[in-house]
Amino acid sequence: MLVAPQLGENVGAAARAMLNGGLTDLRLVAPRPPWPNPRALAAASGADSVVEAARVFDRLEDAVADLRRLYASTARPRDLRKPVLTPREAVQQIREAAPDGAGCGVLFGPERTGLDSDQVALADAMLTVPLNPAYSSLNLGQAVMLIAYEWYQAGRDETAEPPSGLDSERHRRPTRAELHGLFRHLESELDAANFLWPPHTRANMVRNLRNFIARASPTEQEVRTLHGVVTALAGRKWRRGEGGE
Amino acid sequence: MLVAPQLGENVGAAARAMLNGGLTDLRLVAPRPPWPNPRALAAASGADSVVEAARVFDRLEDAVADLRRLYASTARPRDLRKPVLTPREAVQQIREAAPDGAGCGVLFGPERTGLDSDQVALADAMLTVPLNPAYSSLNLGQAVMLIAYEWYQAGRDETAEPPSGLDSERHRRPTRAELHGLFRHLESELDAANFLWPPHTRANMVRNLRNFIARASPTEQEVRTLHGVVTALAGRKWRRGEGGE
Repeated sequence: MLVAPQLGENVGAAARAMLNGGLTDLRLVAPRPPWPNPRALAAASGADSVVEAARVFDRLEDAVADLRRLYASTARPRDLRKPVLTPREAVQQIREAAPDGAGCGVLFGPERTGLDSDQVALADAMLTVPLNPAYSSLNLGQAVMLIAYEWYQAGRDETAEPPSGLDSERHRRPTRAELHGLFRHLESELDAANFLWPPHTRANMVRNLRNFIARASPTEQEVRTLHGVVTALAGRKWRRGEGGE
Repeated sequence: MLVAPQLGENVGAAARAMLNGGLTDLRLVAPRPPWPNPRALAAASGADSVVEAARVFDRLEDAVADLRRLYASTARPRDLRKPVLTPREAVQQIREAAPDGAGCGVLFGPERTGLDSDQVALADAMLTVPLNPAYSSLNLGQAVMLIAYEWYQAGRDETAEPPSGLDSERHRRPTRAELHGLFRHLESELDAANFLWPPHTRANMVRNLRNFIARASPTEQEVRTLHGVVTALAGRKWRRGEGGE
């Protein structure tokens, strides 16, 4: 999933790389106009079908709504406490959870800036490619290539462990939409309680809370439980200053 | 090592990819003029040092003369009987033989055509990236990227086996120059004996012979032995028609 890609050429290169690895579900969040972009199609040479089938969303939250696992590709370490996986580790995790990758996605940020911390906070884990620390800059197409390549390699490994059942009925992951519903429920209650205050600290507090929850990768059942917790606490008319803090 | 690269941009992209993986010894065989190529430098952005330090050769044989292990990157299977390794397998083999990669090289062919069979025949093994069979086309920069990436990953693996000693004094590989010396010795004797005849079949016979020897990856000692064999046989004034056949 490409967030705010600036150059059509890079979307095309990403599509090629995906198809090299047998991946086809390309999603774009707020691509720089125009879209459809003739340069993306030109650069896709042979992978045009992936570009043509790409789904475009205005908001990141909508783009990931149906996913159950989400990884955020980052070039630099972040100050967010969240697992950092290599591409090889991440694809292994995905193959174990869903051999065909259904419901799993990887976020890539805009070319110059990468994902911002609010976007990274939405993911279960960060994904960083280990490269020469003295020269680790990758362009978007190459970053997608390395993930798609590892995805394909993991699928070739016939000695792979059978699915561990972590995503079985009982431990099923929530969709991102369900997770966002929990975020919003929590945040609206916290706003009502004047907890996310003063205003200039709000964004940071929200990010850290979301990051915390996403990092824990709750199950569907746990999400339901957390909704219950929020409702229960809010019903208690929790107010700033009342708690321990 | 890039054989007859046509576009400066691709040389630059290959240099970047190499440096991403911590590799710097770029060699070019008969790059399309001009060289030095300003487009290569522009595309190298940050890896200019690799492009500037690239060594340029007219002939492939000279470019690989000092190497002891040589892999030929190929997109398609060839009719040559020769091991086909994945990048992961190849870098593991190299790391075991020479943890810093000294004396080992990978050949990449021209963008449109790839290496020809005569060039592949010079290598110890072929190297093919397993990718979606329905769409496996890679550009030169991406192909180099995947090898450089795997090279770097293999170096990170601290649980790697200690060097197996296969390239120890006793089993030392010949340099390619030594191997080519053997080829030439053998071929000149075969020419003298009218074995590589009729002329229109010569190229094919030479290729198959070279491929056979390279595939066997002889040690330095074995190369000396083979020279002895050729000399001994030639001294016997072996002539076409005299042998079994």
